[in-house]
Amino acid sequence: MEHLETKKKVGLIVVLTGNGKGKTSSALGMALRAVGHKLHVCIIQFMKGDLYSGEIDGIKWLAPLVEFHQTGKGFCGIQGNPYPYHEHRANAQDAIELAREKILSGHFDVVILDEINNALKLRLVDLPQVLELLDAKPPALHLVLTGRDAHPDVCERAHTVTEMVEVKHAYRDGIEPQQGIDY
Amino acid sequence: MEHLETKKKVGLIVVLTGNGKGKTSSALGMALRAVGHKLHVCIIQFMKGDLYSGEIDGIKWLAPLVEFHQTGKGFCGIQGNPYPYHEHRANAQDAIELAREKILSGHFDVVILDEINNALKLRLVDLPQVLELLDAKPPALHLVLTGRDAHPDVCERAHTVTEMVEVKHAYRDGIEPQQGIDY
Repeated sequence: MEHLETKKKVGLIVVLTGNGKGKTSSALGMALRAVGHKLHVCIIQFMKGDLYSGEIDGIKWLAPLVEFHQTGKGFCGIQGNPYPYHEHRANAQDAIELAREKILSGHFDVVILDEINNALKLRLVDLPQVLELLDAKPPALHLVLTGRDAHPDVCERAHTVTEMVEVKHAYRDGIEPQQGIDY
Repeated sequence: MEHLETKKKVGLIVVLTGNGKGKTSSALGMALRAVGHKLHVCIIQFMKGDLYSGEIDGIKWLAPLVEFHQTGKGFCGIQGNPYPYHEHRANAQDAIELAREKILSGHFDVVILDEINNALKLRLVDLPQVLELLDAKPPALHLVLTGRDAHPDVCERAHTVTEMVEVKHAYRDGIEPQQGIDY
């Protein structure tokens, strides 16, 4: 089996956006791939923490190479949201601060900011705050930003942008979210 | 934290297709999520085995819950392919047989057939063979099929289909594939 040799290492900015299934999953898969190369990964999930999802325990299998943080209360922008805007915003602001700290720590090869695009769209964080993270990123660090409605200025600065388009989704046929696939 | 309770378990057929980055990564992420639920996963990669990729070692961290098979020689449909068609086809035919065996074994909750859409497009496997796998699947088993150019008849039978659309990709700017992100 051949091993590629990357002659010029470039820390990529990768954006995973769109309304289809696969954004967070794809970021988790990159974390798994990075672990295979013995790289250090930090995952910060914005706007999550209310509902259990399998990655919470799955990622424990990848410790000590992967650090995982859930921030937020969930529900933001979702019908029945019981929390006021300012609480969601305060959580997301803490998450931005945590992201900055991890990005600048020198400890990680890959940092994943899960749902940050969505947090920006919902004005829980501000565009200058996100752009500042992209600018402050060490050159060799890979930064992955997921979530619907990625901002055009973020996509503009990214190296790789994928839009996950929903062609169809089981829930439209009334099928509940399924363990191991949807959560 | 709230735990969803899936009242009606449905084994989903999930198709990840399109020309953008994130199809295999997303399937790997679902494997990681499934492991968090202590589910058993089998991954069979079609048309791979020539180039080292981080998931080969990353997945070892998830043993014994994840079984991983690479089949094929790579290169198929790629310029400079040194192998004749019949060798690629023989490998893919072995992979289909392996897939049938794993799907029917009763041992797995999730089976991932990575790049099978592409193998079908390149006529290394035949449409009836793939449809037969979908029909033979135990009702509770989740089946994930990745690769470009998913066949419409496969999408028709799937519950969830995402098209990963390339908005931009680093390699178009002459940036080499990067460890932990691209391989």
